[in-house]
Amino acid sequence: MARKASLSGFPEWLPAERVVEQHVLDTLRRVFELHGFANIETRAVETRGQLLRKGEIDKEVYGLSRLAAEDEDKNDPNALALHFDLTVPFARYVVENAGHLAFPFRRYQMQKVWRGERPQDGRFREFTQADIDVVGDGSLPFSYDVELALTIADALSALPIGDFRLRVNNRKLAEGFYRGLGLDDPDAVLRAIDKLEKIGPQKVAEILTTEVGATAEQAEKALALAGICTSDVSFVEQVRALGVAHELLDTGLDELSQVISAASKRAPGKVVADLSIARGLDYYTGTVYETVLVGHESLGSICSGGRYESLASKGKKTYPGVGLSIGVTRLVSRILGEELVSAARSVPSVVYVTLANEDAWHEAQDVAAALRERGIACEVASSAEKFGKQIKYADRRGIPFVWFTHADGTHEVKDIRSGEQISADPVNWNPPAGDLVNSVN
Amino acid sequence: MARKASLSGFPEWLPAERVVEQHVLDTLRRVFELHGFANIETRAVETRGQLLRKGEIDKEVYGLSRLAAEDEDKNDPNALALHFDLTVPFARYVVENAGHLAFPFRRYQMQKVWRGERPQDGRFREFTQADIDVVGDGSLPFSYDVELALTIADALSALPIGDFRLRVNNRKLAEGFYRGLGLDDPDAVLRAIDKLEKIGPQKVAEILTTEVGATAEQAEKALALAGICTSDVSFVEQVRALGVAHELLDTGLDELSQVISAASKRAPGKVVADLSIARGLDYYTGTVYETVLVGHESLGSICSGGRYESLASKGKKTYPGVGLSIGVTRLVSRILGEELVSAARSVPSVVYVTLANEDAWHEAQDVAAALRERGIACEVASSAEKFGKQIKYADRRGIPFVWFTHADGTHEVKDIRSGEQISADPVNWNPPAGDLVNSVN
Repeated sequence: MARKASLSGFPEWLPAERVVEQHVLDTLRRVFELHGFANIETRAVETRGQLLRKGEIDKEVYGLSRLAAEDEDKNDPNALALHFDLTVPFARYVVENAGHLAFPFRRYQMQKVWRGERPQDGRFREFTQADIDVVGDGSLPFSYDVELALTIADALSALPIGDFRLRVNNRKLAEGFYRGLGLDDPDAVLRAIDKLEKIGPQKVAEILTTEVGATAEQAEKALALAGICTSDVSFVEQVRALGVAHELLDTGLDELSQVISAASKRAPGKVVADLSIARGLDYYTGTVYETVLVGHESLGSICSGGRYESLASKGKKTYPGVGLSIGVTRLVSRILGEELVSAARSVPSVVYVTLANEDAWHEAQDVAAALRERGIACEVASSAEKFGKQIKYADRRGIPFVWFTHADGTHEVKDIRSGEQISADPVNWNPPAGDLVNSVN
Repeated sequence: MARKASLSGFPEWLPAERVVEQHVLDTLRRVFELHGFANIETRAVETRGQLLRKGEIDKEVYGLSRLAAEDEDKNDPNALALHFDLTVPFARYVVENAGHLAFPFRRYQMQKVWRGERPQDGRFREFTQADIDVVGDGSLPFSYDVELALTIADALSALPIGDFRLRVNNRKLAEGFYRGLGLDDPDAVLRAIDKLEKIGPQKVAEILTTEVGATAEQAEKALALAGICTSDVSFVEQVRALGVAHELLDTGLDELSQVISAASKRAPGKVVADLSIARGLDYYTGTVYETVLVGHESLGSICSGGRYESLASKGKKTYPGVGLSIGVTRLVSRILGEELVSAARSVPSVVYVTLANEDAWHEAQDVAAALRERGIACEVASSAEKFGKQIKYADRRGIPFVWFTHADGTHEVKDIRSGEQISADPVNWNPPAGDLVNSVN
């Protein structure tokens, strides 16, 4: 990025950069809505009790206190804090509003979240996430696991980010395999496998044998499973060839096959079965998703998620869900940093309406009103400076057209890129379609 | 509102309510961009030092602290807090990025802000503001004061809020008048006049004579000035008739005349000169704006602002500005509470693609893809329940059309409102234009 944030971890964009971010958000919104997801927003704050239910993330949370209030008890569960993701607030929202929602409820949510972590490349303290989830009342058909992978593949394909891989795995497959192998603590195995990319297979094997109680052969097979990665359903054969049997493994293989076979047909090359995906400590119970930008693997996952047996619960009621979360700020910071695309101009205006003299302001407003009436964004000069200065005003902002109204009431419009100047009427002149909207290319 | 926020002062909307809020935000965005305003966002946090420069609002600020951090010093000016408006962050942004911006810089900004105040009807702890400002480097032509009134009148006219009045006054007019009257503390007079609506003219006169040192005649004239309200420039004559003369009064009358004469032509009936508008303690130096919803005056101002001689400054550099801020949440809560408009449905989907049997899922996805390709939002049934149940799914969400694919490969689409069912082809069937987008009426 050209500039450094004045507050580390809290990026802010210049107007032309914001156009790119806005384009990303608009594109996601369009695709999510085409797939029938309704938008909601939740408040930025939750009670600390709500946020800390998943104990291990407390260090990342920003607590809130009114500066005018007396010193507060940090451990008060009713005190407020900023949300650190959109899943916890969504779960609360679903429980609170269950009586007003139609289940399965499919929603998207694009909001800022905050984490007090140490900022790094692609990791921020304030950042925007774009989440889609489907949540059921009591049960949720598995076909949603397939549908969400397809929706996200559609959404990411529409973004100016180049090629990506949505890597999918299934917790039942992994757990069934480990249990079939005779390893009774599948979570511990998963935690070790999760470190594969960081520390390599040798060290993972060491953890498995010394800490998880696996034999060398069990460790080898667990690593062999994690090494399977296919863009079609051939992973099933490869798993079977490892000679492990378990009922849960069968279910997991079947579920993952459904996702991959649908995806290989509808989003060819975008979705792969990658049996190394573990998603660490998150509370997923079936399908898990992770996404890398091809050529930007070091950025980490730009879109992750999975299936929860119980996204939320109230009393005996549970709400299973499946969802994914796109790291919008991470993506946008990379798009801007690598200049993958940029905005055509720094302002929405297509036309700058000049003033021949100070008395022409009202007439110029009439021109502007006629253009706006037809959806053409424009600005009127604020004073009748020399035309050269007025043209420079437009040029500095990338406004492609300047408008002149002559003393005899006729009009001309000039494309300041080509210099071409033509007669025009504010009630029917149109800019080329490519100029009408501030495009991102 | 139908439901009470689970956390007082932090409203959350149901999906169909969010459609209304989104409509308001989309409409504002469209109008602001047609008028050439570029969008920016600023981070949610500022340093406390930055926020507390206007001393008197400290009680409303939410401070932030990482829960894992050691106890912090509340008085540390580098500690973080949530912004309470968009003006202070914008001023900082302008100073920090001055070298990258083209002045006069016109921007709009629509974000949440937070205030730790006691919640009341129309007053929230978390709420969305939509601000437009133009800021100059060193100077800013007065014509922007006119243009901003017209832009806001355009924006508010496009919202589903009924009639409104943008009331405009001018601090120079008021100060010149008071000084011409012989009152040397115009701020004290303004503060008293600001209470007019709350406590009435008798009590204001009492304050003016006992606390501000005015004679009975001076108090009478100050109140007479505040009583002037016209929808054309006739206020000038009425002020002149009070027999007060001052150079600053002349300037103020001229400036306000420019706003009102332009507005009476371009936004007839929407903008009035209201000489009672004081805008309390805000640091305005010329034009001041306030807006009431006709029939909802108790809601307070829904859009306020004015001209700052120095919105921001750095060393000897000053950045004068003029801007207005719309209270989006206040407006939306009233629109929803009074059911002024509502969304046609709770989901974006126009079509629900049914399944005749479980094997039909892929075929149904083909139908959905063909519809989405042409911008028609749709969902595919997740399992092949009885058609009655599938239709009920659509009906509960207000999805107007259900799609059937028959065993022979032909398709039919049914409008579940009218019951009409017709043959259709996914590559060329279109819903009526009024159904395509989830409309707000």
